[in-house]
Amino acid sequence: MDSHRFDAEVYARRLAAAAAATAQAGLDGLVITPGYDLRYLSGSRAQTFERLTALVVPASGEPTVVVPRLELASLKGSAMTELGVAVRDWVDGDDPYQLVLGALGGGPAAIAVTDSMPALHLLPLAGVLGVLPVLATDILRSLRMVKEECEIDALRKAGSAIDRVHARVPEFLIPGRTEADVAADIAEAIVAEGHSDVSFIIVGSGPHGADPHHSYSDRELQAGDIVVVDIGGAYEPGYHSDSTRTYSLGEPDAVVAQQYSLLQQAQQAALEAVRPGVTAEQVDAAARDVLTSAGLGEYFVHRTGHGIGLSVHEEPYIVKGNDLPLTAGMAFSIEPGIYFPGSWGARIEDIVIVTEDGALPVNNRPHELVVVPVS
Amino acid sequence: MDSHRFDAEVYARRLAAAAAATAQAGLDGLVITPGYDLRYLSGSRAQTFERLTALVVPASGEPTVVVPRLELASLKGSAMTELGVAVRDWVDGDDPYQLVLGALGGGPAAIAVTDSMPALHLLPLAGVLGVLPVLATDILRSLRMVKEECEIDALRKAGSAIDRVHARVPEFLIPGRTEADVAADIAEAIVAEGHSDVSFIIVGSGPHGADPHHSYSDRELQAGDIVVVDIGGAYEPGYHSDSTRTYSLGEPDAVVAQQYSLLQQAQQAALEAVRPGVTAEQVDAAARDVLTSAGLGEYFVHRTGHGIGLSVHEEPYIVKGNDLPLTAGMAFSIEPGIYFPGSWGARIEDIVIVTEDGALPVNNRPHELVVVPVS
Repeated sequence: MDSHRFDAEVYARRLAAAAAATAQAGLDGLVITPGYDLRYLSGSRAQTFERLTALVVPASGEPTVVVPRLELASLKGSAMTELGVAVRDWVDGDDPYQLVLGALGGGPAAIAVTDSMPALHLLPLAGVLGVLPVLATDILRSLRMVKEECEIDALRKAGSAIDRVHARVPEFLIPGRTEADVAADIAEAIVAEGHSDVSFIIVGSGPHGADPHHSYSDRELQAGDIVVVDIGGAYEPGYHSDSTRTYSLGEPDAVVAQQYSLLQQAQQAALEAVRPGVTAEQVDAAARDVLTSAGLGEYFVHRTGHGIGLSVHEEPYIVKGNDLPLTAGMAFSIEPGIYFPGSWGARIEDIVIVTEDGALPVNNRPHELVVVPVS
Repeated sequence: MDSHRFDAEVYARRLAAAAAATAQAGLDGLVITPGYDLRYLSGSRAQTFERLTALVVPASGEPTVVVPRLELASLKGSAMTELGVAVRDWVDGDDPYQLVLGALGGGPAAIAVTDSMPALHLLPLAGVLGVLPVLATDILRSLRMVKEECEIDALRKAGSAIDRVHARVPEFLIPGRTEADVAADIAEAIVAEGHSDVSFIIVGSGPHGADPHHSYSDRELQAGDIVVVDIGGAYEPGYHSDSTRTYSLGEPDAVVAQQYSLLQQAQQAALEAVRPGVTAEQVDAAARDVLTSAGLGEYFVHRTGHGIGLSVHEEPYIVKGNDLPLTAGMAFSIEPGIYFPGSWGARIEDIVIVTEDGALPVNNRPHELVVVPVS
């Protein structure tokens, strides 16, 4: 087995399930270009853009991979060779879209495509197929959303690794250092604690904490700052961590402490709302209701969470309007926040796995505002 | 000015030229999601995927950017604010595709889209527009392909930086070290010599040199190895270097030396073929003919080159079948190679700018096989 992927039988199961779901949807096949769906279905990390690489999964029959001859070696890292996926390689001058059509049986075909397929390939493919494709999201959703044991294990390891980074964050937060200085230390710690890659780093100090999508800047930390630290990385074979804790440089004032404690209650309420059968929007409402009742609803400007796995943001989204019932094995963030523009912000985020008994957090650092002593 | 982009007037010119080319093509507008085209037209480095960010450039009228409210801050790094581009922000629950339609005037619209637009956005957009979009490649090609002075300056700085890295490569190539060890040293040197990012690193030693798309591995270098080193990075504001030199650990044997010298003649022939009015495929043929005449044609398995700029691979492609006449300001690689499977390979690559007087290389390291003494 390659350390960058699971055993081949995991992908064999997924390919069979994807073909069955495609048939169930009344479609002729799936066409998957490089990206998370390809990695999910085959273990491939191919990243070709300009020349078409595509895994073709017919609703019935065997899958085929269409690949530029120059990229044949990239198949080695995937499970495709081990699974005996048919290979149709092509060179400049060939028409790879005709090869896709052939792999689907040759006639006009109703297909679903991966959501990341670029227009560069989607438009000519639509031309050759004679039918506008649909998104494969619906077909792959129930597969990708419900994690298998091997995936849950990877998410838990990733969660423990990012917890170890958060345990070290207080030592990085020294007045006079910039957010960028802190981010550099965090980047090093993310890798040192076992991740293969840094995915994102937010160090939002003082007023920057009020922008949920701030990354980091040259702003110098000051005594009295509230600092939002939202960090994550990829853990082999490619599953992500994502955890936020909020830090206070010195004791917070009474208003901050009070508002933070309401946020903590909101996050706890959402955690406790999680169980199979509850809908995604009910979990969002559980957090939101706490803040709204306390008059802070308008400061919670984003959804409560997002699914996570091979990608940092995937289904299920924990948001109003999503009436998807949760089922055991789903993995997502619970991350309410409060943002006071120009002043400060706070967020608490754990990744949780849905189990029959409720939410199993993969992050286990304390939820309290972390007070960092300043001299 | 932000150091990550050019002055705003550069983008004002480009937006006006893009609108004119769109009208010329008989289309109603361009819709550009994050990627190189967006960066080219606006200086934006936005990377949103799941939520639509799109610059809408009508054939006549003013451009609009459709952007998730949470991502409004991302506009600051671009020239859009300075240029007064209209902003239509949206929140979860809104239909951003209707906002695109509105920015185009409201009726059915024939549009061109950036080649990287993902199916996730392209398919719903096609539904709202009522007409299948076409690729914007043709419309933006003549703009992006012909570099302005500020772009040529960035490419020359990037070229000098990667030349300084190649000058240091011999010290990294020590028998017993792995390709990965060498790649780590090169990664550090790429940044130390002034790039903002590492784009790719190929260290193909011995038989690995025969795979043009090898990256690097745990193979240990051995005395007698021929090593292909193909490296590049991004240089602010985002223009790429890409240069290959081939190294020999100890004196090469006579056959290698002879075949390498034919490769060097082929690369020189292509360099000398470059001038305005010559076609891309004539440059490819100039290199290929030398190798074919010498009986090595079958070992040169890829095209001679690719354009370069904000992306590492872009138009013009220097390949058989491309009858595009070169014009002054085009920038591309000239990189013939010879590959003997299971044995060894070699490649020589420079980036050149087309001038009225011929090819101006931005890379200036010697073309000879670099012999690294081994003890």
